[in-house]
Amino acid sequence: MSKIAIVFFSAAGSTEKIAQAVAEGAGNFGAEVRLMPCNQVDMGYLDAADAIIFGCPTYMGSVPAEYKLFMDATSEAWSARKWCDKVAAGFTNSAALSGDKLGTLIQLALFAFQQGMVWVGLDIMAGKTESGGAVPLNRVGGWLGLMTQINGVTTDEKLVECDLATAEYFGKRVADFTQRLMKKR
Amino acid sequence: MSKIAIVFFSAAGSTEKIAQAVAEGAGNFGAEVRLMPCNQVDMGYLDAADAIIFGCPTYMGSVPAEYKLFMDATSEAWSARKWCDKVAAGFTNSAALSGDKLGTLIQLALFAFQQGMVWVGLDIMAGKTESGGAVPLNRVGGWLGLMTQINGVTTDEKLVECDLATAEYFGKRVADFTQRLMKKR
Amino acid sequence: MSKIAIVFFSAAGSTEKIAQAVAEGAGNFGAEVRLMPCNQVDMGYLDAADAIIFGCPTYMGSVPAEYKLFMDATSEAWSARKWCDKVAAGFTNSAALSGDKLGTLIQLALFAFQQGMVWVGLDIMAGKTESGGAVPLNRVGGWLGLMTQINGVTTDEKLVECDLATAEYFGKRVADFTQRLMKKR
Amino acid sequence: MSKIAIVFFSAAGSTEKIAQAVAEGAGNFGAEVRLMPCNQVDMGYLDAADAIIFGCPTYMGSVPAEYKLFMDATSEAWSARKWCDKVAAGFTNSAALSGDKLGTLIQLALFAFQQGMVWVGLDIMAGKTESGGAVPLNRVGGWLGLMTQINGVTTDEKLVECDLATAEYFGKRVADFTQRLMKKR
Repeated sequence: MSKIAIVFFSAAGSTEKIAQAVAEGAGNFGAEVRLMPCNQVDMGYLDAADAIIFGCPTYMGSVPAEYKLFMDATSEAWSARKWCDKVAAGFTNSAALSGDKLGTLIQLALFAFQQGMVWVGLDIMAGKTESGGAVPLNRVGGWLGLMTQINGVTTDEKLVECDLATAEYFGKRVADFTQRLMKKR
Repeated sequence: MSKIAIVFFSAAGSTEKIAQAVAEGAGNFGAEVRLMPCNQVDMGYLDAADAIIFGCPTYMGSVPAEYKLFMDATSEAWSARKWCDKVAAGFTNSAALSGDKLGTLIQLALFAFQQGMVWVGLDIMAGKTESGGAVPLNRVGGWLGLMTQINGVTTDEKLVECDLATAEYFGKRVADFTQRLMKKR
Repeated sequence: MSKIAIVFFSAAGSTEKIAQAVAEGAGNFGAEVRLMPCNQVDMGYLDAADAIIFGCPTYMGSVPAEYKLFMDATSEAWSARKWCDKVAAGFTNSAALSGDKLGTLIQLALFAFQQGMVWVGLDIMAGKTESGGAVPLNRVGGWLGLMTQINGVTTDEKLVECDLATAEYFGKRVADFTQRLMKKR
Repeated sequence: MSKIAIVFFSAAGSTEKIAQAVAEGAGNFGAEVRLMPCNQVDMGYLDAADAIIFGCPTYMGSVPAEYKLFMDATSEAWSARKWCDKVAAGFTNSAALSGDKLGTLIQLALFAFQQGMVWVGLDIMAGKTESGGAVPLNRVGGWLGLMTQINGVTTDEKLVECDLATAEYFGKRVADFTQRLMKKR
């Protein structure tokens, strides 16, 4: 069984909902999943994990300061190359449709590559409904990672449903890929 | 009167529509505007222009090959520093909402900065209706440049109207800024 | 006389040295310049400034958490559109030559464009010596902004000299452009 | 035995030298490697490959038009999801040290993620000498992929040697990771 950590930041609760859906997808696939707010990470678990999924809202075009505090605090793992070859993935949420979400994902990915990790994205074409699925996935249209648009003021439940379903799919994909990599060890 | 060139690529006509709306906005502000398909540029006009607006669809997360051919062909202007201090701006269109449009705008901006140009973005908050405006602008939510989502299969005329109105606003903004810079010369 | 603010973060002093050289360049051109550490900014001065130059080291491929705290704290200026049309520019320093410095500059630029600012880069070709200059400028080869590589362990004074001279040129360029824009007001 | 394709563009021969060193590293690890100029790709081989390594110089901050022609021509593989889950990696070369090489690597990575591939970077810290190695690796300091600075006018053989050794290491790393993933199949 693979160990997957999800390190997230959520101010208003929307990104936490996404994180939970990602966790559900990975858990349903059979992974051991731990959700951690970015200010309460268990570094021992991260060092032992097979995959780490990074997630936060997009603030001013990039990762919130609260999240960067966590990233900067991983310099020990970095200098000891502890996260090398682990699987990494990322998700972000913002109020605007595009909203510079790609900026946040690029930032998360550059961080993961400095750590020597490999990166898994979202492989669903924009707005495609998977076989057996009830709603179209990847509504927003991102591939470097998961992009969602859920906020407190959204009243359109259909949109929220699409994004949560995409998050669940994304968690499953990361767990699946991590499992494949572990066969060898 | 400021001289503004718009160099665009459009395969199916959608991006050309956007380019025309940008041109209209700049022209209504009082600029002399010339629209040029990227495979028929008038380099003399570009060298003499006060501003150049770059626009194309997003293909596979970046500028189409047809457009890069034009960019690579400007190396003479680059080595002679002919475009230094000119105003630059960019727009892109894709079928997906987010669709890696930011990747295209970053690519266009890096190109403009290698040429020594200064860059003007879109200053409207996402989905905001300007005073006196009929529709909300910046529906997609981009600021590095203009992001639109218009394609042949779109049947929702309201969305198209929003994006064309944003394009017109964008053209006006670039013309306004260019005019301000020219006062000194 | 134009008002220019330089908001910087420096842990070990190298980036502060760069910031001072940028300030010197802008001041020599005739601008009123104020250097502010990012945890002690004078928001009133920033709101009144004609240009703001953002600068920090690159940590893990992006802006340090300390600097993002400042960026996130500008949301009031953002929602009131107070910085709209101001001039923006950025610089970053890192121990490695390339070192994902472009990631930091892209992050700073996306922030500035969300604020509605216009962005000025570095217009010098890589390694070019300006007429009358003693050392080649833009040694590292960046154009979106100023990229330097100075750290405590560097013993090669020649490299440091090149980067500080580039910083001074960069400050002058931003001041010059800001002055041009102000003529109209 | 894993099948690895390297699709490259080289105008003056420098990037081809890098491509050959990457191929050597992968081949020494035991992979079947095929080097293909981007205008003569064997799409059948690419569709059957376990990994594809993308490489080209950086022109004006991004991939040359010649290379984008190849990328745009993969739309059939894209719509049929033929490259999904394959391993991807990238390298780029430019005359300047930093030289916006990160822009090219981001562009290549966004393309690979649109294709549903997973991405492997360079896991060596900047300027570190691997045990048993003769020269320091990752001289330029990139992690999203391999960054080199070799050009016809370089006379410093030591620098070239570092970059070619890094390229060889990079090829080995991609082959190693691809091998691990294949165990499951």
